[in-house]
Amino acid sequence: MPRRSPSDRSFVAETIAIGSELLIGVRSDSNSLFITDALGRLGIEVRFKSIVGDDQLDIVTMLKTAVRRAKVVVMTGGLGPTVDDCTREAIAAATGRRLSRRKEALDSMTARLTQWGRTPNEGQLRQAMIPSGATVLPNPVGSAPGFSLLWKGATLISIPGVPREMEAMMQESVIPRLAAQLEQSNIARPKPMTRLVFHAWGLPEADIDAKLHGLIPKGVPIDLGLLASPMGVLVSLTTKTHRSVGEAVLKSLAEGVRARLREWLFAEGCDTMEEVVGRLLMKQGLTVAVAESCTGGLIGHRLTQVPGSSAYVDRGAICYSNRAKTDMLGVPAELMANHGAVSEEVAAAMARGIRERAGVSVGLSVTGIAGPGGGTETKPVGLVYVGLDGGGDDAMTKEFRFHGDRSMIKQRSSQAALDLLRRWLIGKGST
Amino acid sequence: MPRRSPSDRSFVAETIAIGSELLIGVRSDSNSLFITDALGRLGIEVRFKSIVGDDQLDIVTMLKTAVRRAKVVVMTGGLGPTVDDCTREAIAAATGRRLSRRKEALDSMTARLTQWGRTPNEGQLRQAMIPSGATVLPNPVGSAPGFSLLWKGATLISIPGVPREMEAMMQESVIPRLAAQLEQSNIARPKPMTRLVFHAWGLPEADIDAKLHGLIPKGVPIDLGLLASPMGVLVSLTTKTHRSVGEAVLKSLAEGVRARLREWLFAEGCDTMEEVVGRLLMKQGLTVAVAESCTGGLIGHRLTQVPGSSAYVDRGAICYSNRAKTDMLGVPAELMANHGAVSEEVAAAMARGIRERAGVSVGLSVTGIAGPGGGTETKPVGLVYVGLDGGGDDAMTKEFRFHGDRSMIKQRSSQAALDLLRRWLIGKGST
Repeated sequence: MPRRSPSDRSFVAETIAIGSELLIGVRSDSNSLFITDALGRLGIEVRFKSIVGDDQLDIVTMLKTAVRRAKVVVMTGGLGPTVDDCTREAIAAATGRRLSRRKEALDSMTARLTQWGRTPNEGQLRQAMIPSGATVLPNPVGSAPGFSLLWKGATLISIPGVPREMEAMMQESVIPRLAAQLEQSNIARPKPMTRLVFHAWGLPEADIDAKLHGLIPKGVPIDLGLLASPMGVLVSLTTKTHRSVGEAVLKSLAEGVRARLREWLFAEGCDTMEEVVGRLLMKQGLTVAVAESCTGGLIGHRLTQVPGSSAYVDRGAICYSNRAKTDMLGVPAELMANHGAVSEEVAAAMARGIRERAGVSVGLSVTGIAGPGGGTETKPVGLVYVGLDGGGDDAMTKEFRFHGDRSMIKQRSSQAALDLLRRWLIGKGST
Repeated sequence: MPRRSPSDRSFVAETIAIGSELLIGVRSDSNSLFITDALGRLGIEVRFKSIVGDDQLDIVTMLKTAVRRAKVVVMTGGLGPTVDDCTREAIAAATGRRLSRRKEALDSMTARLTQWGRTPNEGQLRQAMIPSGATVLPNPVGSAPGFSLLWKGATLISIPGVPREMEAMMQESVIPRLAAQLEQSNIARPKPMTRLVFHAWGLPEADIDAKLHGLIPKGVPIDLGLLASPMGVLVSLTTKTHRSVGEAVLKSLAEGVRARLREWLFAEGCDTMEEVVGRLLMKQGLTVAVAESCTGGLIGHRLTQVPGSSAYVDRGAICYSNRAKTDMLGVPAELMANHGAVSEEVAAAMARGIRERAGVSVGLSVTGIAGPGGGTETKPVGLVYVGLDGGGDDAMTKEFRFHGDRSMIKQRSSQAALDLLRRWLIGKGST
């Protein structure tokens, strides 16, 4: 494996997320994922991520470390109007610059507040304090401006931590400026990092690993990554840092992944299962209705996360009680008495019931034991039946035995049901 | 504000999450939140968090920085069986220790694999390689053991990144060892950090800020934190590092938060809205059914996330089409023609319809425009009506105008509906 010298900082970036709430378990830093992606497209690789509280000394410590190992340091957070927010002061202290109220920062902030019918208060006036020599970065959606400065050969960028403001400022100020900076510098332009992502469902990670064994020829600088979650296995092909890979090579590797994983592959890139299913329904002019027991509404929720889903989602029945299964879907009480509510027979009757009552093209059902209670020796927690009914003889059921806690079993069950629908739609589309 | 010297490392911890997938936007590091909480209870404060890829040199860089500022360094990840995983090698390189196969590590791994009917392969044999002088930490749920060693006055701990394994090893090995270490040391035992958390809904963050103004008396070393999300505002009271606060003071501050936020406060600690609502339903022996339009099943999904919810959740109707509202709930077509499907009148009819048809104590409904399409000038995206029907004259509706994207509007709508139910249950319980 090629080893870099630790002093080679070109195109290396670090993100520093600032905020005590990020340390104490309240929320995790999702901004850095956005920044990593945006910088990666410029060929700048985020190799280090740091998180620190609203503590001036701790921020200074972080900053001094960061400029030793990265050429671009993007700090998010700590620019708010309260006394807790001390990123400005920490940067001034670390770099030995003075803070002063900058006219362009004040003007843009005042303009924005006026628009909202307000005038800046004392705290907001602090937000216009900018270290000397720094360039003010306007905030198109909030009041706090950001800024950028050069220190010890590194570009320090400080922007707010509010995701909406961070994203807008990255897109409108930070990325264009860094791109221009790369353009002007006399160093060779870095290769943008390429990353292809595939999503598989229904095969364990080890089986996918085995199927993809030997996919990448020796010497081709691409990393194959696998990551398992209750929603399936994510497969990624990532170019190694600044090593060039031809379009044709990438294309053939992507074809290789598709050929080896075939119908187990349900989506590529940012697509989700519900988007894929939604597009298939839309394209074929079909409508769907769901009958959910153990998923409790999760399948309906997922299908309706997709904008425009009202074109193909008609309705759903959440049948938590046996009586609801009879009332809403016409599942005979004897069927449940004979086979149990969690059975292949009931899953089939639920799918047929919702299709007939809704008058849709296809009915989808789930019945199972999400736990932690309710399991027996013959019907343990995690036993789940999925049913699909497309009218007439076009019906099927599938049994699953899932592991995990209640929430994971619900997630896996919803994925199993949507995947059954996806495979059925693909089969229908190809005939 | 008291300032610490940067060289004061006592009771300061750093977490280092290792894994290239954590850098490239695939998933965020949630392990560190668990570790922060567990160490905080020992009085050890995580002040720095770092994330680095599976790169030996980069890990060494991180490690050298960490021991300069922290006394306890917890590393997660990079202990797997593949060649990518190089945490062991990085720690050996940084500390100048040799790696060798340790009998106790190999034995426990072999025992576990035998249990699964397997024998260790070459990659797994690598997992038994431990730096000299380190203590092996057994892994009670997976194959990779962890280890702990002293270096430059700091305790370095390396455990797997799989959340289930990390949690088990923190609880069974890391925390007991650190507690014993603190017990034996001749330094004063640190004060455990205390943190009280409250959840409010229905008031903007600024109003909550105003209501809580002046709550904490000058000189009392407690930080008040506010954090807004689509699910409401989280209010936290956290003791400042290792400053003692009496039980009585904390209790009276908690009472102060409750008295000032009154019915806007829906939960405390780790409780969620659906758990609070579930407990109230259970206690009063009442049952619920939901009728969802724009939330598409999210309310049903949330209610059924709570173990045991089948005792009080009977059913739900996801009525995405107008016809479904008539079929499933008996909402008259003329009512929708006259007032529109998104109206107070239809919300009321939906709640009554589901209550009557399900024969439950209370019916809860939502109808609204989640966007991005479907809005008009008089009925814009974000307009949502929530309805509740408890039988007879006991019915109400509420109008909301939410901001945000489709997903946020769905989340806020579900929270609004559950909060209406919560307030109704509290009113019922007190009469």
